[in-house]
Amino acid sequence: MSSQPSSEPVRPTWPLGLDRIAYGGDYNPEQWPEEVWKEDVTLMREAGVNLVSVGIFSWALLEPREGEFDFGWLDRLLELLHDNGIRVDLGTPTASPPAWFFAAHPDARVVTRDGTPLGFGSRGMAGPSHPAYRAAAVRIADQLARRYGRHPAVALWHVHNEYGAPVSEDYSPASAGAFRAWLQGRYGTLDALNAAWGTAFWGQRYGDWAHVDVPAVAPSVVNPAQRLDFARFTDDALRACFVAERDAIRAHSDVPVTTNFMTTNCPSTDLWKWADEVDVVSNDHYLTAADPRAHVDLALAADLTRSLARGRPWILMEHSTSAVNWQPRNIAKRPGEMARNALSHLGRGSDAILFFQWRASRSGAEKFHSAMLPHAGTTSRVWREVRALGADLGRLDEVRGSTVRADVALLWDWESFWAQDLEWRPSVDLDHRERVRAYYERLWRDGLTVDLAHPGADLSGYRLVVAPASYLLTAASGDNLSRYVAQGGTLVVSYFSGIVDEHDAVHPDGYGAPLRTTLGVSVEEFLPLREGETVRLAWDHDGERTELVADVWADDLVLEGADVVATYLDGPAAGRAAVTRHRHGAGTGWYVSTRLDVDALAHVLRGAYADAGLTPAGLPDEVEVVRRDGPTARFVVAINHADAPVDVPADGTELLTGTAVRGRVTVPAGGVAVVREHRGG
Amino acid sequence: MSSQPSSEPVRPTWPLGLDRIAYGGDYNPEQWPEEVWKEDVTLMREAGVNLVSVGIFSWALLEPREGEFDFGWLDRLLELLHDNGIRVDLGTPTASPPAWFFAAHPDARVVTRDGTPLGFGSRGMAGPSHPAYRAAAVRIADQLARRYGRHPAVALWHVHNEYGAPVSEDYSPASAGAFRAWLQGRYGTLDALNAAWGTAFWGQRYGDWAHVDVPAVAPSVVNPAQRLDFARFTDDALRACFVAERDAIRAHSDVPVTTNFMTTNCPSTDLWKWADEVDVVSNDHYLTAADPRAHVDLALAADLTRSLARGRPWILMEHSTSAVNWQPRNIAKRPGEMARNALSHLGRGSDAILFFQWRASRSGAEKFHSAMLPHAGTTSRVWREVRALGADLGRLDEVRGSTVRADVALLWDWESFWAQDLEWRPSVDLDHRERVRAYYERLWRDGLTVDLAHPGADLSGYRLVVAPASYLLTAASGDNLSRYVAQGGTLVVSYFSGIVDEHDAVHPDGYGAPLRTTLGVSVEEFLPLREGETVRLAWDHDGERTELVADVWADDLVLEGADVVATYLDGPAAGRAAVTRHRHGAGTGWYVSTRLDVDALAHVLRGAYADAGLTPAGLPDEVEVVRRDGPTARFVVAINHADAPVDVPADGTELLTGTAVRGRVTVPAGGVAVVREHRGG
Amino acid sequence: MSSQPSSEPVRPTWPLGLDRIAYGGDYNPEQWPEEVWKEDVTLMREAGVNLVSVGIFSWALLEPREGEFDFGWLDRLLELLHDNGIRVDLGTPTASPPAWFFAAHPDARVVTRDGTPLGFGSRGMAGPSHPAYRAAAVRIADQLARRYGRHPAVALWHVHNEYGAPVSEDYSPASAGAFRAWLQGRYGTLDALNAAWGTAFWGQRYGDWAHVDVPAVAPSVVNPAQRLDFARFTDDALRACFVAERDAIRAHSDVPVTTNFMTTNCPSTDLWKWADEVDVVSNDHYLTAADPRAHVDLALAADLTRSLARGRPWILMEHSTSAVNWQPRNIAKRPGEMARNALSHLGRGSDAILFFQWRASRSGAEKFHSAMLPHAGTTSRVWREVRALGADLGRLDEVRGSTVRADVALLWDWESFWAQDLEWRPSVDLDHRERVRAYYERLWRDGLTVDLAHPGADLSGYRLVVAPASYLLTAASGDNLSRYVAQGGTLVVSYFSGIVDEHDAVHPDGYGAPLRTTLGVSVEEFLPLREGETVRLAWDHDGERTELVADVWADDLVLEGADVVATYLDGPAAGRAAVTRHRHGAGTGWYVSTRLDVDALAHVLRGAYADAGLTPAGLPDEVEVVRRDGPTARFVVAINHADAPVDVPADGTELLTGTAVRGRVTVPAGGVAVVREHRGG
Repeated sequence: MSSQPSSEPVRPTWPLGLDRIAYGGDYNPEQWPEEVWKEDVTLMREAGVNLVSVGIFSWALLEPREGEFDFGWLDRLLELLHDNGIRVDLGTPTASPPAWFFAAHPDARVVTRDGTPLGFGSRGMAGPSHPAYRAAAVRIADQLARRYGRHPAVALWHVHNEYGAPVSEDYSPASAGAFRAWLQGRYGTLDALNAAWGTAFWGQRYGDWAHVDVPAVAPSVVNPAQRLDFARFTDDALRACFVAERDAIRAHSDVPVTTNFMTTNCPSTDLWKWADEVDVVSNDHYLTAADPRAHVDLALAADLTRSLARGRPWILMEHSTSAVNWQPRNIAKRPGEMARNALSHLGRGSDAILFFQWRASRSGAEKFHSAMLPHAGTTSRVWREVRALGADLGRLDEVRGSTVRADVALLWDWESFWAQDLEWRPSVDLDHRERVRAYYERLWRDGLTVDLAHPGADLSGYRLVVAPASYLLTAASGDNLSRYVAQGGTLVVSYFSGIVDEHDAVHPDGYGAPLRTTLGVSVEEFLPLREGETVRLAWDHDGERTELVADVWADDLVLEGADVVATYLDGPAAGRAAVTRHRHGAGTGWYVSTRLDVDALAHVLRGAYADAGLTPAGLPDEVEVVRRDGPTARFVVAINHADAPVDVPADGTELLTGTAVRGRVTVPAGGVAVVREHRGG
Repeated sequence: MSSQPSSEPVRPTWPLGLDRIAYGGDYNPEQWPEEVWKEDVTLMREAGVNLVSVGIFSWALLEPREGEFDFGWLDRLLELLHDNGIRVDLGTPTASPPAWFFAAHPDARVVTRDGTPLGFGSRGMAGPSHPAYRAAAVRIADQLARRYGRHPAVALWHVHNEYGAPVSEDYSPASAGAFRAWLQGRYGTLDALNAAWGTAFWGQRYGDWAHVDVPAVAPSVVNPAQRLDFARFTDDALRACFVAERDAIRAHSDVPVTTNFMTTNCPSTDLWKWADEVDVVSNDHYLTAADPRAHVDLALAADLTRSLARGRPWILMEHSTSAVNWQPRNIAKRPGEMARNALSHLGRGSDAILFFQWRASRSGAEKFHSAMLPHAGTTSRVWREVRALGADLGRLDEVRGSTVRADVALLWDWESFWAQDLEWRPSVDLDHRERVRAYYERLWRDGLTVDLAHPGADLSGYRLVVAPASYLLTAASGDNLSRYVAQGGTLVVSYFSGIVDEHDAVHPDGYGAPLRTTLGVSVEEFLPLREGETVRLAWDHDGERTELVADVWADDLVLEGADVVATYLDGPAAGRAAVTRHRHGAGTGWYVSTRLDVDALAHVLRGAYADAGLTPAGLPDEVEVVRRDGPTARFVVAINHADAPVDVPADGTELLTGTAVRGRVTVPAGGVAVVREHRGG
Repeated sequence: MSSQPSSEPVRPTWPLGLDRIAYGGDYNPEQWPEEVWKEDVTLMREAGVNLVSVGIFSWALLEPREGEFDFGWLDRLLELLHDNGIRVDLGTPTASPPAWFFAAHPDARVVTRDGTPLGFGSRGMAGPSHPAYRAAAVRIADQLARRYGRHPAVALWHVHNEYGAPVSEDYSPASAGAFRAWLQGRYGTLDALNAAWGTAFWGQRYGDWAHVDVPAVAPSVVNPAQRLDFARFTDDALRACFVAERDAIRAHSDVPVTTNFMTTNCPSTDLWKWADEVDVVSNDHYLTAADPRAHVDLALAADLTRSLARGRPWILMEHSTSAVNWQPRNIAKRPGEMARNALSHLGRGSDAILFFQWRASRSGAEKFHSAMLPHAGTTSRVWREVRALGADLGRLDEVRGSTVRADVALLWDWESFWAQDLEWRPSVDLDHRERVRAYYERLWRDGLTVDLAHPGADLSGYRLVVAPASYLLTAASGDNLSRYVAQGGTLVVSYFSGIVDEHDAVHPDGYGAPLRTTLGVSVEEFLPLREGETVRLAWDHDGERTELVADVWADDLVLEGADVVATYLDGPAAGRAAVTRHRHGAGTGWYVSTRLDVDALAHVLRGAYADAGLTPAGLPDEVEVVRRDGPTARFVVAINHADAPVDVPADGTELLTGTAVRGRVTVPAGGVAVVREHRGG
């Protein structure tokens, strides 16, 4: 008889042995002759690089034939890096199985919704539910862990790459079988499944588990509850792949394990669940070039990553030094932009600034992606900025481990996003991403720091909670929000919220039922607007009277206790309430029944701030200020996105220049500043 | 030896036992617990509902496993409805076969043109030509007819649902086999098929019947005659499914049989042929939200339905109380709009006003579709209007059975539409739907009542015939039109008419050959205009001189006896005839060689009205007036789509209010009026 | 032992027995009863037709069942044509195999990238690599050659039809096998393939030839080097089909062999290679109706065809008398336009003016395509112009055999176009066709005659070489351009040139490396502009100072010896060089780092002309003048695209009218003139 440990060991949550802000990127030396490696390491040291991710796409090199392994080159590489003091984030290469895998297991290919199998020649995992893929992935992870699990160079495990991209939903027979098993586990009986999916509609009732299938293309729209469950299943299947690899590694290694998230691309992963499985949260973020204010999306992504990390420091695993290669127009970053991006991530809680990738690839699909060392080499602007950023980060070491505190929570729920993205919604202009971004940007402009939160989470620590897009809202989450308000919180809810339950079924008491008592209104009918149609609102609250313009949506609202803050002047709801405010217990619930732009939302949030006891920061336009709190100091991180210098209130020492700051620090046009303030000072 | 009846019995042509205007909708109680049914029936009575359609999507409940039937719930439902005086339109559920059917017959799945089979999980029949589907459909229809064929609640049979949507063309092997058999029946010999299809072009000659296939995707454009025949075959295959079910029912029931058409969606069914197969014509109509004048399309649909019914009363089987759920932006109806829609259908010959559906579904693809009883319940505006409409219809009982008479026929031919919709036409701006709608809307605005007619039909009863889109026009139909004009009729023909014969082959004597002598012109060459290009026309007819603007199209016209009414001032046909008028026998033929908008068409039709001895109604804008004639009374149905009250000439009694009308009735803004006039008064 | 001939016989390079400018078109008499043939021949003689292409789509008639041949109708047809002095361009019908072929060999169907097999019913060859297709194609070519190889009517062989359209890339298993064999031939070892394709990126390394596949759809972007090689393989496979048929014909016939190219559609054929395989170059050209200046594309196509023909006379195998049928809007040609088109081809070196097709088809996909004899018959404008053109060509016989000389070469390389068209380029606004056309149109407007040339060709005969789109440029081609400049040439290079090598790998020394010393600049980073963004340039060269506007692109340029000619005033490269000029050896290299429109390019080319010693023609706008040189005379071909008459300098005899020309010839609005000048006169 062996004794079992009674509790889980405490696992490390940061790359082992890394005592500075992490700096570096993906390193793919297999694309280059070994003589280049020495130059790489020399230049890494010159740039201040202390952490590189290796092996992410190396499966075909490490296991050239099924079950035959060749670790020689990786041994030499880790040795070289270790000798030069560069720590290693070691990848498992399972995001890109070798050609031999697909040749041996053609039925493990991912199949699209219309039945096309996706083969080799690009990148992308095999079907996440296929046993052969899972076995092969665990085998290579096990091999790596056995060989390198205690290697002194290895600081972190990087399992797979960007789960959910480019492969998520899989309509193969293997996936269908796994989906059936998953449904049996979820529902137990067919009756329960029939009820949950509402199969009485359109005659879809199942009499045999064997008849339940993946929601592939059909003559018309497929059952939305089925599709929503398939999204949940897909997420679970991907996460099961991660967990299997992680556990294979943990059997041989105490090095912490991560996988790189892509938080704001709204993909197929419910990261609230994933965050519980990783030892340390890491994220990839790329600017959307077509977005003139892409730095706001960056801030949102960073805040979401911090929220997933429960406030602990996190790793910016990938971003770019300049242009990416996969957008319609890949706009290069302007001088200084890379540093602003990096410092914004750092200000929002990242203690690691990493890039894809170290050296630009000559071949392949991403050869036009920027890198730390571009095709133009060490005489280039990008290289100069990479070196300067490395030096700057060296000056910010003391920021490590400090934390960010937010007074505002913005609700964020992947399940709701999945549900709202299904077909046949009341209007194609309904766009949850747009609404989340608009409310977030309003808060960003007002200088308020924001956490993202699940609607079912404990919200009691926030003064203000904003729900821009809570289409799927369970009764339990509705109760959670009600409690939050009743106990003194302020809640702002946007339209098309609280519509369906976890099965995409309309709440029994109608649209918005879970929020009805909290907000003091109910929605009798949706009144979506025509393409391009606008409506005017008369705003009349707290002494402020003005007229606003809105579009996309209106509701036919029934007042059930709420006060009217704004009234429709025209359109399908002319004369009726547009924005309402309701006292509920010790708190206040606002409802906004139409689409207001970021400027117009200022009126709504001004009122909500007043209710919540919040004050906007009052900073100049386009200046971003975030604060991190350490045990003895607060660090004010200021980023100036504007073309002119600005003054930001601060008191202490500017760390990048080492200069003293009295009352205000001047941040140059396009520049950054980090001021150490004494806490309570 | 049994004796056979020597002739068909006369079949009932109206829901049995229904002695009022029918009012109600689709009723899907299987989506709700049985305790809700009682509330449903109570509310139905409150609203004046007297007919509901049930069982349309119930196959999986009625036959939970192949060959095992469970009618208990339907027995109880019919009992309950019967006890409450609500009559039943009983559906056969064959538009949505159960999961077990697709599992047992995967080869019965419909296959798309590019080879994708369409499975279960949505709605949609199996391949209409597959023997297993036909057998299963007939079996369930037979079972229902045996059990309920003489049930006192059952007033009407509702076979299937909306044939042609979402399933029409099927490229499966089963369909290919049936298509070959159909072609052998049509052509007899391969030589005949080769000739009809023009297979000498591009080397497509067939030497073996086994090589003839469905027109699936190919490297370039597929033979248009083959595609046109495949459209005909598809229509025949769908209709054969209907006939098989209908005959199975008739073996056990004398209740009349219908299936719900979708007249103006231009689908895959040639409803001229279908109308001969049903006992009573019924139609589904939904407004197109993006169309600011969707009520004109409604009128066209209603007129077409009446024309299909050969002037007899018909059933509006489905429309909506407010928004639908499947358009890009599902615009709610404004207050009063539902009543205007309903009365427009009624004015154009419908004696039944039914909705999809009674109670809004909580689950499934259509949960955001409006209903008589919406998610918001009985306190809602929609419910109030539903009750009011039920009451109003009760006041209009005497209108039942009266008929509508039209002086104008608009040509409508599904075969021509199918042919014109094939690829590689002279211009993508050619749009037969648009031209039909434009000419129809001109007649609508002029207050003239319109029948739709096939080009080969007897047209002698009409003063004016308009051919907005007769691309495919057989020589026989051309002769029919020629006779019509020669005998005194007035004909208006739009461009791109009379181009091809029944095999999509250009007429031997060139474009427009079948109309040449009637119109006194021939078309030497098409002169399509560039994108956005406009041309000016000098209009000079009957003392009126003006300038018009046109677009999309011009012809190089050769005058062969016609007079020039309008001349191109610029563009590719500058200086040449644009609109012509020709005396042919005792009548007149007009030709319009370019696209004029609804306003500009007023000039053309003013001239044609004069030739035809017709006078526009001279009503205010946006007022719709239609008349139904009974044995002793004429009913003037007036619908005011405008925002201000209008006066409409009438004399008698306004039936909704019971007030006397002398000379004119004032119809309120957005309102309706129905005046009983004594005939000949 | 048999003796082998020591050298290839000299092959005829012009349709045998044709002693006039060829005039005629595709003739498909199988679409008509034989009694029509006699009328056809009578009308052909009336129109001056002396060459027709027959049999192109006749496979199913000639071989109605596999291996059974029926040549009777073709025997009679050739006899009839021969008797009437009309020579025959005899097609092999392999572009459209019969139904029996596809039925017998379903695995020979072409498969699309997403796995859809393309069947019969349209037109299009089978998979070019499938052995059954190759065997069947050679068999029918052999049969035709045996029977007609010495027939007195046959003047030319017309193998297949438009290789590459509608079939080019084939993803079938047969194609995959052939691709693997092709790759083994190209690379020898897997190591070489792995290196060439850069398979270390994304873990694509191959360990077994059997795992290498066609680049079908995959989860993300497929390896670009693999796709580029697949394009090369596809071209080789198509060309192998041609060569196999050609060799089968040559075994029995000395008649020259051609196949009709489609030069400017940028299809899947590398016509530099094809031109070496045909006895005479022929081309199909159709105007793009949506292009208001489609005649410029015509000139480009004609110049490219002449360049492919190494300056020898060539055949315009197809163009249209008026509209085509396959564009979105098929615009009819205006009066005179057909003659202008024909004379432009002739002026640029064609000695044959042929059309698709002789008589308009009544049936099939192209019945709305114009013809020499349209549906409207011999009373039509088109027929009158066809007769007039035939007569005009009879007056130009002496032009035959004369040649065109160009001072300017524009670089044109299908491999580079293929590579640039792959995914994930820096900007979707990069468009090589647009740049080629813009530079060509600038030269066209300046009245300069242009050859097209491969970057590796001998360029020493040109004063100016323009490289508008040389994304893929090998080091060897870079050296060729460097030599050209060093020896006194003038080179103008547009942006995004010299980026990758033959494997789509970035040049080791960075963007533009092969041109670096020639141009005196290097490109540090791409700075693509946002959608719709424009930048301003200060132009300052040779005393000219002005401001230009550009869009789409900018570079971050590093000057390495070049002079700055224009500087960015704003945008991402503000203050940096936009256009440079560099003396290299005895010549000059220009670099243009942004997109200038045709007007703005005048500034660049004015400078380059000065360097090259070239002078623009100084003609009025929209007048096109080209010259052909014969042994004793020069022929000035002038085409007036404008609406007013213009004077063109010339001296001699206008051949169409027979009038003497002294100093200038007046070309009527929309008209043409051909003046014979004595050489050196």
